[in-house]
Amino acid sequence: MAEASARRRGRGGGGAARRAARTGVKIEAAKYIERNIPLTEILNEEALEIIERNADILLEEVGVNFVNNKAALDRWKEAGADVDYDAERVRIPRGMARELCKTAPSRIIQHARNPERNVEIGGNTLVCAPVYGPPFVRDAEGGRRYATMADFEKFVKLGYMSKWLHHSGGTVCEPTDVPVNKRHLDMLLAHMTLSDKPFMGSVTEPSRAQDSVEMCEILFGKEFVQENTVMTSLINVNSPMTFDDIMMGALEVYAKNNQACIISPFIVGGAMAPVSVVGTLTQVLAEVTAGIAYSQLIRPGAPVIFGAFVTSIDMNSGAPTFGTPEASQILYGAGQLARRLGLPFRSGGGLCGSKLPDAQAAYETAHTHNAVLNGGVNFMLHSCGWLEGGLVASFEKFVMDADQLGVLHKLAAGVAYDENAQAMDAVREVGPGGHYLGCAHTQANFKDAFWRSELLDYKPFETWEDEGARDTQALAAARVAELLGAYEAPPLDPEIEARLRAYVEEKKASMPDAFV
Amino acid sequence: MAEASARRRGRGGGGAARRAARTGVKIEAAKYIERNIPLTEILNEEALEIIERNADILLEEVGVNFVNNKAALDRWKEAGADVDYDAERVRIPRGMARELCKTAPSRIIQHARNPERNVEIGGNTLVCAPVYGPPFVRDAEGGRRYATMADFEKFVKLGYMSKWLHHSGGTVCEPTDVPVNKRHLDMLLAHMTLSDKPFMGSVTEPSRAQDSVEMCEILFGKEFVQENTVMTSLINVNSPMTFDDIMMGALEVYAKNNQACIISPFIVGGAMAPVSVVGTLTQVLAEVTAGIAYSQLIRPGAPVIFGAFVTSIDMNSGAPTFGTPEASQILYGAGQLARRLGLPFRSGGGLCGSKLPDAQAAYETAHTHNAVLNGGVNFMLHSCGWLEGGLVASFEKFVMDADQLGVLHKLAAGVAYDENAQAMDAVREVGPGGHYLGCAHTQANFKDAFWRSELLDYKPFETWEDEGARDTQALAAARVAELLGAYEAPPLDPEIEARLRAYVEEKKASMPDAFV
Repeated sequence: MAEASARRRGRGGGGAARRAARTGVKIEAAKYIERNIPLTEILNEEALEIIERNADILLEEVGVNFVNNKAALDRWKEAGADVDYDAERVRIPRGMARELCKTAPSRIIQHARNPERNVEIGGNTLVCAPVYGPPFVRDAEGGRRYATMADFEKFVKLGYMSKWLHHSGGTVCEPTDVPVNKRHLDMLLAHMTLSDKPFMGSVTEPSRAQDSVEMCEILFGKEFVQENTVMTSLINVNSPMTFDDIMMGALEVYAKNNQACIISPFIVGGAMAPVSVVGTLTQVLAEVTAGIAYSQLIRPGAPVIFGAFVTSIDMNSGAPTFGTPEASQILYGAGQLARRLGLPFRSGGGLCGSKLPDAQAAYETAHTHNAVLNGGVNFMLHSCGWLEGGLVASFEKFVMDADQLGVLHKLAAGVAYDENAQAMDAVREVGPGGHYLGCAHTQANFKDAFWRSELLDYKPFETWEDEGARDTQALAAARVAELLGAYEAPPLDPEIEARLRAYVEEKKASMPDAFV
Repeated sequence: MAEASARRRGRGGGGAARRAARTGVKIEAAKYIERNIPLTEILNEEALEIIERNADILLEEVGVNFVNNKAALDRWKEAGADVDYDAERVRIPRGMARELCKTAPSRIIQHARNPERNVEIGGNTLVCAPVYGPPFVRDAEGGRRYATMADFEKFVKLGYMSKWLHHSGGTVCEPTDVPVNKRHLDMLLAHMTLSDKPFMGSVTEPSRAQDSVEMCEILFGKEFVQENTVMTSLINVNSPMTFDDIMMGALEVYAKNNQACIISPFIVGGAMAPVSVVGTLTQVLAEVTAGIAYSQLIRPGAPVIFGAFVTSIDMNSGAPTFGTPEASQILYGAGQLARRLGLPFRSGGGLCGSKLPDAQAAYETAHTHNAVLNGGVNFMLHSCGWLEGGLVASFEKFVMDADQLGVLHKLAAGVAYDENAQAMDAVREVGPGGHYLGCAHTQANFKDAFWRSELLDYKPFETWEDEGARDTQALAAARVAELLGAYEAPPLDPEIEARLRAYVEEKKASMPDAFV
């Protein structure tokens, strides 16, 4: 292990840094966030206990469905649950799901091929990953269109270049020009070769999860993968209360291989869960504990994350809505429930319903970003690039949101109050009516005193007007071009890269294309 | 009192409501926010005590300047402070400023001419007032230009029509086409006649503060004004540590007349205060306690608000920056300090540095709005309409931000967990794999379940595209036009209105125009 680690560390890339230095783009990677601030706890003890009791009642009385998955029903039966094979329904005695969750670890270290990019998920940390799943992309120049593998690679490159983004993500967009049964191979290859940040595995078929594991064995070494977590993958629950065979099949593969899964109800409130916050939280808790309990039946100690992806709904149109107060309330409450279970927590993102990277997109995104920070999220999928309710991955919004993640880093750090921070000498030096720009304390501290956006406009009005009176989208389009122009792949052992490419080619050749 | 009150209540306006009903614009006014959620406390007890001790040290060792104001120096001398008349410097013995602050009330009820619009400032409340001070206005059609009295009146009308805005504000923009020495009269007349929400008085000259009091005596009755607070006015401190004669003269007028003042350091961090958060908070606390102590020397019990308007600075350009993490941290810390003094707290707003109502404006605004909600602000000036660092009042951003204040209302309400909110029957009714849209619980609750924007786009992509693919600014421009088209003034006793107009005319005729 130590040897492999040292070898990888030795490959740390100077090329991209050199090229970036030439173009003026800085390549930096911030460490994942470690919060030094209190969390927002919007539910009191009484409300939390009611939700926990009600979730247990639901699991026992109503139960959950595991569909097309007799092996899962058998596992539950053996564990002591009440199983109705005809209805594929599992009723879990009170307390049993919570008890089973206890073997799940409270913190996960996900390894990256560059050990400096390893992330810890759990406790006071927050790991930011990009948007996941959109079939469309949008940029200012080309408008909205179906995503391609070329788009996918651009997003992976942007993610690699984004200082405040800790994770390369998974399906940053759906490469619709690659057959459905083969695109996971190209996506994984892109994450593995174009970035050195941690990434997610495929969940669209159990066999693709297995492919993900095998590609990781090439990248990290077989033994390393069995002993360490190198992927965090997204397992959605079909809310309400249903676990399908495809997602559970992928979960089974990952759990057996000690790889992390996010067990995540996917809920549009009012459609897949009750319209009330507490009703939704009750269902979320029941679903997550059932799913995590199942992961522990597969392999006790398998790394898992308590997920909650919940939007509200516009009752006029039926459209899901994002960045709303109810979505924030559910995020806060779910965080409290996850912490009481001692589990890492996934929620939030740069979520918005807007069709464009405009003010609506930013209001909604900022509301969710703030809730993520204050609500104790440990893994934020969709941190950047999400547009139009997740139908679209936006190039401009990707760099806009990624820049905003810097705000969260600074807020999370909390406030220093040592002697230097107290700045008493500065006030004594300057005195009433003076100014601080030139004083010794300012000179000594100004470089790190204030977070500075690398994208937003801080220029005098006249300069801004002379430069074309650009709005945020236009500034972001320029930054996308600048980052992609400066991109250079992080170095990778050519032998490993050749083996990865051979694996992908061989797999692709082994089956006909499928587009559904 | 009761009689006057009943008479005013009787005038409650049906005309605007009827007209609005015809155009489809709803005229509603939400009650000020009463928080039912915990606040964010980012400073621990040790840090707070250090700041309080250091502020006391600064007041005693360094002191504050009261310039061009011998009467103020005399008052301090008489109160026991160490006064240097040549330097106009007041050094306040440790603990004395805090002690003097104790006679200031912890809550203020500001009366409106429509008693339903009265606001309470302090404790768990949050009162939202619009942007204050910009010399320019901007809208999508006309771009950026100097503000006029016609613009001012439009903003007052928009404020009256904005459901989530509780307060009509003060100088919503500077009517630059009216002489400087007369514009306060027109501004007050506009607030008094075009809206029935509470408002702010003039502070640009002590005599204009006196005019404000006299106009209120016409509107509310002389006795009512002496016994009740009918104005909340903005007294800026010339940071660092300087109180000028104009602002103090206005404060003296208001305090003597039992009218509320916000004592507010105006700080660009790194220029008017140290670059560190704790250093800035120390100076803010010293300045506010000195100012509030002075108000209590004028009239013990005079209503005052602990203000903190602090931005960060872009150390590259020297430009003030808004919506930054450091600005939020200072807001949170100042809120804690205000609560420890038992004083109402003013900070924040829809602050941003952007030149346009674009994504940057919205990110920055939403960060500040969230900090305001979680940081315990009681009076939020600049809630809506602020653009370009406060140089510009934007019509579109006014309605965009005013709509966003609805998010804060819903978040502040907290989460219900009664039997209906628990929704157990709903989950039992729907069960695994079902959906909730038609269930009894959804039918009974959907109308109030989710906050709904009256501005943002929730439409299907195709509809949105067919309607012109409008961004938030374009949607907001349409809403501005719609609101102004539906506006009708709230009814006012014609005799009072005539007396107000006569007062303004007489005052204007009594002096030549002045434009500086």
